[in-house]
Amino acid sequence: MNVNDEASAWAPASISNLGPGFDAFGAALAGLGDTVSVKCSSTVQDTVCFSPDSLWRGPTDPGRNTASVAARAVAQRLGYDGGLDIEITKGLPAGTGMGSSAASCVAAAVATEALLGARLETEHMLAAVIEGEAATSGHGHADNVLPALLGGLIMMRSVSPSDYIRFEGWESLFFVVVLPEMEVLTREARTALPESIPLAKAVDHAARLGLLLNALHHQDAPSLGKWMMSDDIVVPARKHLWPHLDDVVAGAMQAGAEGCAISGSGPAVLACCSGNGADRLRSVSSAMQAACNENGLEATAAVHQIDNIGARILTTDGPVGYRTRQPIS
Amino acid sequence: MNVNDEASAWAPASISNLGPGFDAFGAALAGLGDTVSVKCSSTVQDTVCFSPDSLWRGPTDPGRNTASVAARAVAQRLGYDGGLDIEITKGLPAGTGMGSSAASCVAAAVATEALLGARLETEHMLAAVIEGEAATSGHGHADNVLPALLGGLIMMRSVSPSDYIRFEGWESLFFVVVLPEMEVLTREARTALPESIPLAKAVDHAARLGLLLNALHHQDAPSLGKWMMSDDIVVPARKHLWPHLDDVVAGAMQAGAEGCAISGSGPAVLACCSGNGADRLRSVSSAMQAACNENGLEATAAVHQIDNIGARILTTDGPVGYRTRQPIS
Repeated sequence: MNVNDEASAWAPASISNLGPGFDAFGAALAGLGDTVSVKCSSTVQDTVCFSPDSLWRGPTDPGRNTASVAARAVAQRLGYDGGLDIEITKGLPAGTGMGSSAASCVAAAVATEALLGARLETEHMLAAVIEGEAATSGHGHADNVLPALLGGLIMMRSVSPSDYIRFEGWESLFFVVVLPEMEVLTREARTALPESIPLAKAVDHAARLGLLLNALHHQDAPSLGKWMMSDDIVVPARKHLWPHLDDVVAGAMQAGAEGCAISGSGPAVLACCSGNGADRLRSVSSAMQAACNENGLEATAAVHQIDNIGARILTTDGPVGYRTRQPIS
Repeated sequence: MNVNDEASAWAPASISNLGPGFDAFGAALAGLGDTVSVKCSSTVQDTVCFSPDSLWRGPTDPGRNTASVAARAVAQRLGYDGGLDIEITKGLPAGTGMGSSAASCVAAAVATEALLGARLETEHMLAAVIEGEAATSGHGHADNVLPALLGGLIMMRSVSPSDYIRFEGWESLFFVVVLPEMEVLTREARTALPESIPLAKAVDHAARLGLLLNALHHQDAPSLGKWMMSDDIVVPARKHLWPHLDDVVAGAMQAGAEGCAISGSGPAVLACCSGNGADRLRSVSSAMQAACNENGLEATAAVHQIDNIGARILTTDGPVGYRTRQPIS
């Protein structure tokens, strides 16, 4: 092993679910993410700290922190049994439905791989980041870690995430993401779901996911908008957790968005818009924020394109994409 | 209305289901189908007969025959209330899982439209052929009528069949279809299905359909083969209806097929093979037939490409495609 002194990586925020894409779809968001630096420790213990620039601070118990669990999972797969000192810089708020834990988890895994000067097969890397993701959520879902790792828009089998389809290059697609100040517990969102559904509903759910994917294949924003709003299984069951949703969706659509849906288990709501007409993006954003305010919720809004690169290793010569191992110009 | 004396049309056989494509996927098969001729009757009653060339004869009660129900559904939508004399030439055996009723139903609908010199919107034509299909099966499923009408490989929402994705042009894809001499009652196949399934299974079912569609997008035969064999909901529930299936699948795969699955509710089994290597197609076909024989079943086998045209209106100048209204060279 050609171990370095220190390595750092950045991984993007991500949206997930998108209606019939529940537990099957995620996409990386440009311009928002977490940075993790990893050093070899002088002891055999892992340590976790948060940098002064971190937006907030989370648990520093290395057995419970998503970043350190992922870093350790990579180290173990590469046969390194020394300790790791992990420093996290959160750029993303937590509990929003925008893949905050996945961003830290993936950045830590990629930084650890770079630190140890080796390369894991993608499927082993995936297993490691899913282990990290499970440390916070209790569920090893791949719908945020996979886009955070590889970038782009991704559909995957959550039971077997190395079975995935990745789309990239949709430059004209913009997501307006509104984040109301409220908490949705992932655990509560999980328990709100039905344990089973009628077969006929499952068949239709699958066809709708097929139509959503077809929209991605053809970069067809009106179809993407239509099908991301077509879920009739997950959203109805969780509606009570998102009292703001109907008004935010109505506001976004009236202002000209192509579609609007909850991200992850919320409370973030995202609207998709094709073309970068600044006026329309501003109108959609304002309408979504105003709808939150009318529901008594403060809210921030931002416009994101897809991040097609995914996790980057931060080197002194500039960032290098994890997926391609190419410098990013 | 510019009513003609007589009009005839042909529509192809079709396969359907393909693993996770249950009630969502169908494809038209080249070289096999039914012909229906329609005349304006001198009475207001519809009549049904079978031509001397017909492979077999079915019910001639116009209220129960799939062709006459579809013809009437088209006539009614076009405002024609005279009687129709319908002559059917079955080229397809019945109860096989190869879209026999759909072929007659679609041919009758297209012939009636041509007879009446008018054109229905696709969605109205679809509604008419689904009405016809329901006359025999009791279920208005679109997975055979849609490919029989439009040709190609089609994924659709069965609850809303005008939401579909159509693929064509996959010249290197061959289906070896083996038809054992046994009966599977569609009704029995329906009642064998679970009424509901766990949500996690539904989510995975949807992702597998997504991966199947991706294989169609990329004309990737190994992926198509893999995902058409991945169903874990419908096939296990119906396995007892198809005692030959495991052996036929094993035979096809050993002989080099890319994938093998039941068509419709069976008993037809189809294997997909990319490339027209005659030796391999022959081996696959023989292996599948031999496996039927070992299970005490006589069986016929044939090799089909996709029919990309779908239903044709048969004119004195040659066939004209229903979908494109272009002569077929």
